[in-house]
Amino acid sequence: MVRRMRMISDWARERFAGAQVARLATADGFGRPHLVPIVFAVERATIHSAVDAKPKSSTALRRLANIADNPQVSLLVDHYDDDWTQLWWARADGIARVSVDAGAAIGLLAERYPQYREAPPAGPFITIAVQHWSGWSASPLR
Amino acid sequence: MVRRMRMISDWARERFAGAQVARLATADGFGRPHLVPIVFAVERATIHSAVDAKPKSSTALRRLANIADNPQVSLLVDHYDDDWTQLWWARADGIARVSVDAGAAIGLLAERYPQYREAPPAGPFITIAVQHWSGWSASPLR
Repeated sequence: MVRRMRMISDWARERFAGAQVARLATADGFGRPHLVPIVFAVERATIHSAVDAKPKSSTALRRLANIADNPQVSLLVDHYDDDWTQLWWARADGIARVSVDAGAAIGLLAERYPQYREAPPAGPFITIAVQHWSGWSASPLR
Repeated sequence: MVRRMRMISDWARERFAGAQVARLATADGFGRPHLVPIVFAVERATIHSAVDAKPKSSTALRRLANIADNPQVSLLVDHYDDDWTQLWWARADGIARVSVDAGAAIGLLAERYPQYREAPPAGPFITIAVQHWSGWSASPLR
């Protein structure tokens, strides 16, 4: 059982790390969930992301305000296919932190996204310490 | 401003309704967010979904337990493209309710997903009363 859970955790982390977009769920102090798509980079048990688009918009502020109120976050990568035997998803649950310093984020994000090589994100940056990787696949894990 | 918000709301609802998969964010009584992909059908200001896969699994139970604790939910549809001028997303925030009766859900879901025509979902069913549609597009709305 422990071995199977470890296998699922490794599989989920790998699938998650290879995706181009994830969805970040935060919740405010009243437990009201909020969702946005993000681009990201995985470094071991850390997920890096930047708030680059419209930093003064209500959407960007809401995400940051929620993390300040409640650092618990959940992130999801999923694959849809008309053939439901091909469905899978991978999730990361963890603790988010907002910082103005990029740390390793800019370099890791630029490796994955050419747009960030041309125009490095100004930040702020969201760093998620992943506590739990989970996932599911309609077909046997591969 | 009101007119523009109305336009965004209509656009978001339309884009959301046309997607095949959405992500459902719930939060437990401690405000801890949880995320799963769902298939769904939109009927005016209502989103219908069924818990059909592995109804006794921890994932399905968590979603239902969270809604029982805290009915506030957020759902997201997004489009990723290597060309970031093509990015868009649409979000629905609302109040979820779990029921064992399908109501209109089975018919509406079966219209959209052939798998549900062959094997109607047993439920339970999640019905979301949408309070707010929002969205964003990197290119002008169309």
